[in-house]
Amino acid sequence: MPRVATGESSLARAVRILESFTPDAPQLTVTEVARRSGLHVATASRIVGHLVGHGLLSRGPDRELRVGMRLWELASRAAPTRSLRDAAMPYLEDLHAVVGHHAQLAVLDGEDVIFLERLSARDAVVNYSRIAGRLPLHISSSGVVLLAYAPADVQERVLARPLESRTPSTITDPDRLRTTLEQVRRQGYALLPGHVHPDATGIAVPVRNGLGEVVAALSVIVPNDARAVAAVPALLAAARGIGRSLR
Amino acid sequence: MPRVATGESSLARAVRILESFTPDAPQLTVTEVARRSGLHVATASRIVGHLVGHGLLSRGPDRELRVGMRLWELASRAAPTRSLRDAAMPYLEDLHAVVGHHAQLAVLDGEDVIFLERLSARDAVVNYSRIAGRLPLHISSSGVVLLAYAPADVQERVLARPLESRTPSTITDPDRLRTTLEQVRRQGYALLPGHVHPDATGIAVPVRNGLGEVVAALSVIVPNDARAVAAVPALLAAARGIGRSLR
Repeated sequence: MPRVATGESSLARAVRILESFTPDAPQLTVTEVARRSGLHVATASRIVGHLVGHGLLSRGPDRELRVGMRLWELASRAAPTRSLRDAAMPYLEDLHAVVGHHAQLAVLDGEDVIFLERLSARDAVVNYSRIAGRLPLHISSSGVVLLAYAPADVQERVLARPLESRTPSTITDPDRLRTTLEQVRRQGYALLPGHVHPDATGIAVPVRNGLGEVVAALSVIVPNDARAVAAVPALLAAARGIGRSLR
Repeated sequence: MPRVATGESSLARAVRILESFTPDAPQLTVTEVARRSGLHVATASRIVGHLVGHGLLSRGPDRELRVGMRLWELASRAAPTRSLRDAAMPYLEDLHAVVGHHAQLAVLDGEDVIFLERLSARDAVVNYSRIAGRLPLHISSSGVVLLAYAPADVQERVLARPLESRTPSTITDPDRLRTTLEQVRRQGYALLPGHVHPDATGIAVPVRNGLGEVVAALSVIVPNDARAVAAVPALLAAARGIGRSLR
Protein backbone atom coordinates (compact mmCIF):
# COMPACT_ATOMS: atom_id res chain seq x y z
CA MET A 1 0.00 0.00 0.00
CA PRO A 2 1.47 3.36 -0.95
CA ARG A 3 2.12 5.81 1.83
CA VAL A 4 -0.61 8.44 1.74
CA ALA A 5 -0.05 12.03 2.73
CA THR A 6 -1.22 11.91 6.34
CA GLY A 7 -2.31 14.94 8.26
CA GLU A 8 0.80 14.87 10.37
CA SER A 9 3.35 14.97 7.62
CA SER A 10 1.35 17.53 5.69
CA LEU A 11 1.24 19.83 8.68
CA ALA A 12 4.93 19.17 9.29
CA ARG A 13 5.68 20.19 5.70
CA ALA A 14 3.59 23.33 6.07
CA VAL A 15 5.63 24.21 9.16
CA ARG A 16 8.88 23.55 7.27
CA ILE A 17 7.67 25.89 4.52
CA LEU A 18 6.81 28.63 7.02
CA GLU A 19 10.23 28.14 8.63
CA SER A 20 11.98 28.91 5.36
CA PHE A 21 10.99 32.59 5.68
CA THR A 22 13.52 34.45 7.83
CA PRO A 23 14.43 38.09 8.55
CA ASP A 24 17.15 37.83 5.87
CA ALA A 25 14.85 36.09 3.40
CA PRO A 26 11.34 37.44 3.98
CA GLN A 27 10.40 37.07 0.31
CA LEU A 28 10.91 33.83 -1.63
CA THR A 29 9.91 32.14 -4.88
CA VAL A 30 8.33 28.66 -4.79
CA THR A 31 11.64 27.23 -6.02
CA GLU A 32 13.50 28.88 -3.15
CA VAL A 33 10.88 27.65 -0.69
CA ALA A 34 11.32 24.11 -2.02
CA ARG A 35 15.10 24.30 -1.71
CA ARG A 36 15.05 25.78 1.79
CA SER A 37 12.43 23.36 3.10
CA GLY A 38 13.92 20.30 1.41
CA LEU A 39 10.71 19.52 -0.48
CA HIS A 40 10.09 18.67 -4.13
CA VAL A 41 8.96 21.74 -6.07
CA ALA A 42 5.63 20.07 -6.87
CA THR A 43 4.97 19.29 -3.20
CA ALA A 44 6.10 22.73 -2.07
CA SER A 45 3.96 24.34 -4.75
CA ARG A 46 0.85 22.40 -3.68
CA ILE A 47 1.24 23.16 0.03
CA VAL A 48 2.14 26.80 -0.73
CA GLY A 49 -1.15 27.00 -2.65
CA HIS A 50 -3.07 25.87 0.42
CA LEU A 51 -1.13 28.22 2.71
CA VAL A 52 -1.92 31.13 0.37
CA GLY A 53 -5.57 30.03 0.34
CA HIS A 54 -5.68 30.28 4.14
CA GLY A 55 -3.84 33.62 4.12
CA LEU A 56 -0.87 32.15 6.01
CA LEU A 57 1.33 33.08 3.05
CA SER A 58 0.65 35.83 0.52
CA ARG A 59 1.73 36.03 -3.10
CA GLY A 60 2.79 39.40 -4.46
CA PRO A 61 2.18 40.72 -7.98
CA ASP A 62 5.69 39.43 -8.86
CA ARG A 63 4.60 35.91 -7.68
CA GLU A 64 7.04 36.17 -4.77
CA LEU A 65 5.81 34.68 -1.49
CA ARG A 66 5.77 36.32 1.92
CA VAL A 67 4.40 35.46 5.34
CA GLY A 68 0.70 36.34 5.29
CA MET A 69 -0.93 38.96 7.47
CA ARG A 70 -3.35 36.27 8.68
CA LEU A 71 -0.51 34.24 10.22
CA TRP A 72 0.75 37.30 12.07
CA GLU A 73 -2.79 38.05 13.22
CA LEU A 74 -3.44 34.50 14.51
CA ALA A 75 -0.11 34.46 16.30
CA SER A 76 -0.37 37.96 17.79
CA ARG A 77 -3.96 38.41 18.86
CA ALA A 78 -3.84 35.55 21.37
CA ALA A 79 -0.08 35.52 21.98
CA PRO A 80 0.88 34.09 25.38
CA THR A 81 3.08 37.15 25.96
CA ARG A 82 0.35 39.65 25.20
CA SER A 83 -0.40 40.69 28.78
CA LEU A 84 3.31 40.89 29.54
CA ARG A 85 3.88 43.10 26.52
CA ASP A 86 0.91 45.32 27.34
CA ALA A 87 2.13 45.74 30.91
CA ALA A 88 5.70 46.42 29.79
CA MET A 89 5.24 48.87 26.91
CA PRO A 90 4.73 52.10 28.92
CA TYR A 91 7.81 51.30 31.03
CA LEU A 92 9.82 50.30 27.97
CA GLU A 93 8.97 53.67 26.44
CA ASP A 94 9.96 55.58 29.59
CA LEU A 95 13.21 53.63 29.78
CA HIS A 96 13.94 54.26 26.14
CA ALA A 97 13.22 57.99 26.54
CA VAL A 98 15.62 58.24 29.50
CA VAL A 99 18.44 55.88 28.51
CA GLY A 100 18.22 56.19 24.72
CA HIS A 101 19.74 53.58 22.40
CA HIS A 102 17.87 50.24 22.56
CA ALA A 103 15.37 49.11 25.21
CA GLN A 104 14.19 45.53 24.99
CA LEU A 105 11.84 42.98 26.51
CA ALA A 106 12.76 39.30 26.24
CA VAL A 107 11.55 35.93 27.53
CA LEU A 108 12.94 32.44 27.90
CA ASP A 109 11.89 29.96 25.21
CA GLY A 110 13.42 26.53 25.59
CA GLU A 111 17.17 27.19 25.82
CA ASP A 112 17.08 30.48 23.94
CA VAL A 113 16.19 34.05 24.71
CA ILE A 114 13.56 35.44 22.36
CA PHE A 115 13.08 39.20 22.01
CA LEU A 116 9.44 40.33 22.20
CA GLU A 117 9.85 44.06 21.81
CA ARG A 118 12.56 46.55 21.08
CA LEU A 119 12.49 50.33 20.99
CA SER A 120 15.47 51.84 19.18
CA ALA A 121 16.77 55.35 18.75
CA ARG A 122 17.57 56.32 15.19
CA ASP A 123 21.25 56.87 16.06
CA ALA A 124 21.57 54.03 18.56
CA VAL A 125 24.67 51.93 19.10
CA VAL A 126 24.76 48.68 17.10
CA ASN A 127 22.50 45.86 18.32
CA TYR A 128 22.14 42.37 16.90
CA SER A 129 18.97 41.31 18.64
CA ARG A 130 15.70 41.85 16.83
CA ILE A 131 12.03 41.32 17.47
CA ALA A 132 11.21 37.62 17.35
CA GLY A 133 14.95 37.01 17.10
CA ARG A 134 16.64 34.31 19.18
CA LEU A 135 20.03 34.07 20.84
CA PRO A 136 21.54 31.25 22.91
CA LEU A 137 21.09 32.14 26.60
CA HIS A 138 24.77 32.67 27.52
CA ILE A 139 25.47 35.39 24.94
CA SER A 140 23.37 38.45 25.80
CA SER A 141 22.66 40.20 29.11
CA SER A 142 18.94 39.34 28.71
CA GLY A 143 19.78 35.67 28.17
CA VAL A 144 22.16 35.56 31.14
CA VAL A 145 19.49 37.06 33.42
CA LEU A 146 16.89 34.54 32.21
CA LEU A 147 19.41 31.71 32.63
CA ALA A 148 20.33 32.86 36.15
CA TYR A 149 16.70 32.38 37.24
CA ALA A 150 15.86 29.43 34.94
CA PRO A 151 14.99 25.93 36.24
CA ALA A 152 18.06 23.93 37.26
CA ASP A 153 17.67 21.46 34.38
CA VAL A 154 17.82 24.27 31.80
CA GLN A 155 20.96 25.65 33.48
CA GLU A 156 22.62 22.24 33.55
CA ARG A 157 21.85 21.56 29.88
CA VAL A 158 23.22 24.97 28.83
CA LEU A 159 26.34 24.57 30.98
CA ALA A 160 27.00 21.06 29.61
CA ARG A 161 27.04 22.19 25.97
CA PRO A 162 29.78 23.95 23.99
CA LEU A 163 29.23 27.72 24.42
CA GLU A 164 29.30 29.55 21.10
CA SER A 165 31.36 32.76 20.92
CA ARG A 166 30.31 36.07 19.32
CA THR A 167 33.19 38.31 20.39
CA PRO A 168 36.35 37.69 22.44
CA SER A 169 34.31 38.82 25.48
CA THR A 170 31.49 36.27 25.14
CA ILE A 171 31.50 33.81 28.05
CA THR A 172 32.49 30.41 26.62
CA ASP A 173 33.85 28.80 29.80
CA PRO A 174 31.16 26.97 31.83
CA ASP A 175 32.84 27.74 35.16
CA ARG A 176 32.96 31.43 34.31
CA LEU A 177 29.31 31.28 33.23
CA ARG A 178 28.35 29.60 36.52
CA THR A 179 30.15 32.35 38.47
CA THR A 180 28.45 35.01 36.37
CA LEU A 181 25.01 33.49 37.05
CA GLU A 182 25.70 33.53 40.82
CA GLN A 183 26.81 37.15 40.55
CA VAL A 184 23.66 38.09 38.61
CA ARG A 185 21.46 36.51 41.30
CA ARG A 186 23.43 38.31 44.01
CA GLN A 187 23.52 41.78 42.45
CA GLY A 188 20.15 41.56 40.64
CA TYR A 189 21.35 42.54 37.16
CA ALA A 190 23.69 41.46 34.33
CA LEU A 191 26.10 43.92 32.75
CA LEU A 192 27.98 42.38 29.82
CA PRO A 193 30.35 44.74 27.96
CA GLY A 194 31.11 43.64 24.41
CA HIS A 195 29.65 40.13 24.69
CA VAL A 196 27.41 40.44 21.63
CA HIS A 197 29.24 43.25 19.80
CA PRO A 198 32.56 44.86 20.79
CA ASP A 199 31.07 48.39 20.78
CA ALA A 200 27.95 47.69 22.84
CA THR A 201 27.16 46.85 26.45
CA GLY A 202 24.00 44.98 27.38
CA ILE A 203 22.47 45.53 30.81
CA ALA A 204 19.50 43.41 31.87
CA VAL A 205 17.34 42.91 34.94
CA PRO A 206 14.67 40.31 35.79
CA VAL A 207 10.95 41.12 35.62
CA ARG A 208 8.93 39.27 38.28
CA ASN A 209 5.21 38.51 38.31
CA GLY A 210 2.94 38.67 41.38
CA LEU A 211 4.29 35.32 42.61
CA GLY A 212 7.88 36.58 42.48
CA GLU A 213 8.68 34.35 39.50
CA VAL A 214 11.01 35.76 36.84
CA VAL A 215 8.89 35.97 33.67
CA ALA A 216 11.00 38.24 31.46
CA ALA A 217 14.21 40.22 31.14
CA LEU A 218 14.22 43.97 30.62
CA SER A 219 17.38 45.34 29.03
CA VAL A 220 19.08 48.31 27.43
CA ILE A 221 21.98 48.37 24.99
CA VAL A 222 24.33 51.33 25.43
CA PRO A 223 27.81 52.27 24.16
CA ASN A 224 30.56 50.19 25.67
CA ASP A 225 31.99 52.68 28.15
CA ALA A 226 32.15 53.36 31.88
CA ARG A 227 28.77 55.14 31.97
CA ALA A 228 26.87 51.92 31.19
CA VAL A 229 26.30 51.06 34.86
CA ALA A 230 24.29 54.26 35.30
CA ALA A 231 21.39 52.56 33.52
CA VAL A 232 20.93 49.96 36.28
CA PRO A 233 18.66 51.96 38.66
CA ALA A 234 16.33 53.00 35.81
CA LEU A 235 16.10 49.37 34.68
CA LEU A 236 15.37 48.09 38.20
CA ALA A 237 12.68 50.72 38.71
CA ALA A 238 11.03 49.95 35.35
CA ALA A 239 11.09 46.18 36.07
CA ARG A 240 9.31 46.81 39.40
CA GLY A 241 6.69 48.89 37.59
CA ILE A 242 6.05 46.13 35.06
CA GLY A 243 5.79 43.56 37.86
CA ARG A 244 3.21 45.74 39.64
CA SER A 245 1.18 46.13 36.41
CA LEU A 246 1.20 42.34 35.96
CA ARG A 247 -0.56 41.77 39.28
CA MET B 1 -13.00 3.50 -0.20
CA PRO B 2 -13.04 5.55 3.01
CA ARG B 3 -12.07 9.18 2.71
CA VAL B 4 -8.53 9.57 4.01
CA ALA B 5 -7.31 12.69 5.78
CA THR B 6 -5.71 14.56 2.90
CA GLY B 7 -3.02 17.16 3.43
CA GLU B 8 -5.36 19.95 2.48
CA SER B 9 -8.13 19.27 4.91
CA SER B 10 -5.66 18.52 7.68
CA LEU B 11 -4.01 21.90 7.19
CA ALA B 12 -7.44 23.53 7.01
CA ARG B 13 -8.35 21.92 10.32
CA ALA B 14 -5.10 23.07 11.90
CA VAL B 15 -5.94 26.62 10.78
CA ARG B 16 -9.45 26.30 12.24
CA ILE B 17 -7.91 25.19 15.52
CA LEU B 18 -5.51 28.14 15.56
CA GLU B 19 -8.43 30.46 14.77
CA SER B 20 -10.28 29.33 17.90
CA PHE B 21 -7.78 31.25 20.06
CA THR B 22 -8.81 34.90 20.36
CA PRO B 23 -7.93 37.88 22.59
CA ASP B 24 -10.95 37.02 24.77
CA ALA B 25 -10.13 33.29 24.81
CA PRO B 26 -6.34 32.97 24.70
CA GLN B 27 -6.37 29.78 26.78
CA LEU B 28 -8.56 26.80 25.94
CA THR B 29 -9.03 23.12 26.79
CA VAL B 30 -9.09 20.53 23.98
CA THR B 31 -12.87 20.25 24.46
CA GLU B 32 -13.26 24.02 24.00
CA VAL B 33 -10.99 23.93 20.95
CA ALA B 34 -13.14 21.15 19.47
CA ARG B 35 -16.35 23.08 20.09
CA ARG B 36 -15.00 26.37 18.73
CA SER B 37 -13.44 24.77 15.64
CA GLY B 38 -16.42 22.48 14.96
CA LEU B 39 -14.27 19.33 15.06
CA HIS B 40 -14.77 16.03 16.85
CA VAL B 41 -12.84 15.94 20.12
CA ALA B 42 -10.74 13.00 18.87
CA THR B 43 -9.79 14.85 15.68
CA ALA B 44 -9.12 18.10 17.53
CA SER B 45 -7.05 16.22 20.08
CA ARG B 46 -4.92 14.54 17.40
CA ILE B 47 -4.24 17.77 15.49
CA VAL B 48 -3.63 19.70 18.72
CA GLY B 49 -1.00 17.06 19.55
CA HIS B 50 0.81 17.75 16.29
CA LEU B 51 0.52 21.51 16.73
CA VAL B 52 2.00 21.20 20.23
CA GLY B 53 4.77 19.00 18.79
CA HIS B 54 5.69 21.77 16.34
CA GLY B 55 5.47 24.45 19.04
CA LEU B 56 2.58 26.19 17.28
CA LEU B 57 0.47 25.58 20.37
CA SER B 58 1.76 25.07 23.90
CA ARG B 59 0.22 23.12 26.75
CA GLY B 60 0.49 24.53 30.28
CA PRO B 61 0.92 22.56 33.49
CA ASP B 62 -2.90 22.70 33.84
CA ARG B 63 -3.23 21.09 30.34
CA GLU B 64 -4.74 24.31 29.00
CA LEU B 65 -3.67 25.21 25.48
CA ARG B 66 -2.28 28.54 24.28
CA VAL B 67 -0.80 29.85 21.05
CA GLY B 68 2.85 28.75 20.99
CA MET B 69 5.81 31.06 21.02
CA ARG B 70 7.03 29.35 17.84
CA LEU B 71 3.95 30.49 15.89
CA TRP B 72 4.50 34.08 17.01
CA GLU B 73 8.17 33.78 16.08
CA LEU B 74 7.49 32.40 12.59
CA ALA B 75 4.85 35.06 11.97
CA SER B 76 6.86 37.98 13.34
CA ARG B 77 10.44 37.44 12.25
CA ALA B 78 9.58 37.65 8.55
CA ALA B 79 6.35 39.67 8.83
CA PRO B 80 5.54 41.64 5.67
CA THR B 81 5.00 44.74 7.81
CA ARG B 82 8.33 44.47 9.56
CA SER B 83 10.13 47.27 7.72
CA LEU B 84 7.07 49.51 8.03
CA ARG B 85 6.94 48.88 11.77
CA ASP B 86 10.67 49.47 12.19
CA ALA B 87 10.45 52.75 10.25
CA ALA B 88 7.38 53.85 12.19
CA MET B 89 8.27 53.03 15.79
CA PRO B 90 10.48 56.06 16.60
CA TYR B 91 7.83 58.41 15.17
CA LEU B 92 5.05 56.55 16.96
CA GLU B 93 6.95 57.03 20.21
CA ASP B 94 7.48 60.76 19.57
CA LEU B 95 3.81 61.17 18.70
CA HIS B 96 2.76 59.29 21.78
CA ALA B 97 5.03 61.40 23.97
CA VAL B 98 3.60 64.64 22.57
CA VAL B 99 -0.08 63.78 22.14
CA GLY B 100 -0.47 61.21 24.92
CA HIS B 101 -3.36 58.74 25.00
CA HIS B 102 -3.11 56.14 22.19
CA ALA B 103 -0.89 56.30 19.09
CA GLN B 104 -1.41 53.58 16.50
CA LEU B 105 -0.15 52.20 13.22
CA ALA B 106 -2.58 50.30 11.00
CA VAL B 107 -2.71 48.77 7.53
CA LEU B 108 -5.35 47.62 5.08
CA ASP B 109 -5.98 43.86 4.99
CA GLY B 110 -8.74 42.86 2.63
CA GLU B 111 -11.73 44.97 3.63
CA ASP B 112 -10.60 45.48 7.23
CA VAL B 113 -8.13 47.68 9.02
CA ILE B 114 -5.67 45.70 11.12
CA PHE B 115 -3.70 47.40 13.91
CA LEU B 116 0.03 46.65 13.88
CA GLU B 117 1.20 48.67 16.84
CA ARG B 118 -0.29 50.74 19.59
CA LEU B 119 1.36 52.79 22.29
CA SER B 120 -0.94 53.67 25.16
CA ALA B 121 -0.66 55.93 28.16
CA ARG B 122 -1.63 54.34 31.45
CA ASP B 123 -4.49 56.84 31.93
CA ALA B 124 -5.50 57.10 28.27
CA VAL B 125 -9.04 57.60 27.05
CA VAL B 126 -10.91 54.39 26.17
CA ASN B 127 -9.91 52.65 22.91
CA TYR B 128 -11.34 49.51 21.39
CA SER B 129 -8.65 48.76 18.83
CA ARG B 130 -5.86 46.39 19.84
CA ILE B 131 -2.74 44.98 18.31
CA ALA B 132 -3.62 42.42 15.63
CA GLY B 133 -7.22 43.50 16.09
CA ARG B 134 -9.46 44.14 13.09
CA LEU B 135 -12.26 46.61 12.44
CA PRO B 136 -14.41 47.08 9.34
CA LEU B 137 -12.94 50.01 7.36
CA HIS B 138 -15.78 52.52 7.80
CA ILE B 139 -15.73 52.56 11.61
CA SER B 140 -12.40 54.02 12.77
CA SER B 141 -10.39 57.04 11.59
CA SER B 142 -7.55 54.69 10.52
CA GLY B 143 -9.96 52.58 8.50
CA VAL B 144 -11.55 55.61 6.83
CA VAL B 145 -8.11 56.93 5.81
CA LEU B 146 -7.13 53.54 4.37
CA LEU B 147 -10.49 53.29 2.59
CA ALA B 148 -10.14 56.82 1.15
CA TYR B 149 -6.94 55.76 -0.63
CA ALA B 150 -7.88 52.10 -1.29
CA PRO B 151 -8.35 50.66 -4.81
CA ALA B 152 -11.74 51.56 -6.33
CA ASP B 153 -13.01 47.95 -6.16
CA VAL B 154 -12.43 47.79 -2.38
CA GLN B 155 -14.28 51.10 -1.96
CA GLU B 156 -17.21 49.92 -4.06
CA ARG B 157 -17.51 46.62 -2.17
CA VAL B 158 -17.48 48.39 1.20
CA LEU B 159 -19.99 51.02 0.03
CA ALA B 160 -22.33 48.32 -1.36
CA ARG B 161 -22.57 46.45 1.95
CA PRO B 162 -24.61 47.20 5.10
CA LEU B 163 -22.43 49.42 7.32
CA GLU B 164 -22.34 48.17 10.89
CA SER B 165 -22.82 50.75 13.66
CA ARG B 166 -20.80 51.07 16.90
CA THR B 167 -22.16 54.33 18.26
CA PRO B 168 -24.85 56.75 17.04
CA SER B 169 -21.98 58.67 15.33
CA THR B 170 -20.64 55.75 13.25
CA ILE B 171 -21.14 56.41 9.53
CA THR B 172 -23.74 53.91 8.31
CA ASP B 173 -25.04 55.79 5.26
CA PRO B 174 -23.05 55.00 2.07
CA ASP B 175 -23.56 58.52 0.64
CA ARG B 176 -22.27 60.09 3.81
CA LEU B 177 -19.31 57.68 3.77
CA ARG B 178 -18.57 58.62 0.15
CA THR B 179 -18.60 62.34 1.05
CA THR B 180 -16.36 61.64 4.06
CA LEU B 181 -13.83 59.79 1.86
CA GLU B 182 -13.71 62.76 -0.55
CA GLN B 183 -13.19 65.12 2.36
CA VAL B 184 -10.37 62.94 3.76
CA ARG B 185 -8.59 62.99 0.39
CA ARG B 186 -9.06 66.78 0.15
CA GLN B 187 -7.92 67.70 3.67
CA GLY B 188 -5.41 64.85 4.13
CA TYR B 189 -6.72 63.49 7.43
CA ALA B 190 -9.77 61.88 9.05
CA LEU B 191 -11.15 63.18 12.34
CA LEU B 192 -14.04 61.07 13.65
CA PRO B 193 -15.48 62.13 17.02
CA GLY B 194 -17.27 59.34 18.84
CA HIS B 195 -17.45 56.91 15.91
CA VAL B 196 -15.91 53.96 17.80
CA HIS B 197 -16.67 55.07 21.36
CA PRO B 198 -18.74 58.10 22.46
CA ASP B 199 -15.92 59.48 24.64
CA ALA B 200 -13.07 59.20 22.14
CA THR B 201 -12.03 60.93 18.93
CA GLY B 202 -9.86 59.15 16.37
CA ILE B 203 -7.63 61.23 14.11
CA ALA B 204 -5.72 59.48 11.32
CA VAL B 205 -3.44 60.44 8.43
CA PRO B 206 -2.04 58.40 5.53
CA VAL B 207 1.58 57.16 5.49
CA ARG B 208 3.07 57.12 1.99
CA ASN B 209 6.03 55.11 0.71
CA GLY B 210 8.70 56.39 -1.71
CA LEU B 211 6.30 55.93 -4.65
CA GLY B 212 3.67 58.09 -2.99
CA GLU B 213 1.44 55.06 -2.35
CA VAL B 214 -0.53 54.98 0.90
CA VAL B 215 0.82 51.97 2.84
CA ALA B 216 -0.50 52.61 6.34
CA ALA B 217 -2.54 54.89 8.57
CA LEU B 218 -1.06 56.66 11.56
CA SER B 219 -3.56 57.69 14.21
CA VAL B 220 -4.09 58.99 17.71
CA ILE B 221 -7.09 58.54 19.99
CA VAL B 222 -7.81 61.55 22.21
CA PRO B 223 -10.72 62.67 24.40
CA ASN B 224 -13.76 63.72 22.46
CA ASP B 225 -13.50 67.51 22.76
CA ALA B 226 -12.65 70.58 20.70
CA ARG B 227 -8.87 70.23 21.22
CA ALA B 228 -8.70 67.02 19.16
CA VAL B 229 -7.88 68.85 15.90
CA ALA B 230 -4.64 70.13 17.46
CA ALA B 231 -3.15 66.65 16.95
CA VAL B 232 -3.32 66.92 13.14
CA PRO B 233 -0.02 68.77 12.47
CA ALA B 234 1.94 66.36 14.72
CA LEU B 235 0.37 63.40 12.90
CA LEU B 236 1.14 64.82 9.46
CA ALA B 237 4.74 65.53 10.43
CA ALA B 238 5.22 62.04 11.87
CA ALA B 239 3.71 60.41 8.76
CA ARG B 240 6.18 62.36 6.56
CA GLY B 241 9.03 61.15 8.76
CA ILE B 242 7.94 57.53 8.45
CA GLY B 243 7.62 57.91 4.68
CA ARG B 244 11.15 59.31 4.49
CA SER B 245 12.50 56.40 6.58
CA LEU B 246 10.80 53.93 4.25
CA ARG B 247 12.69 55.18 1.19
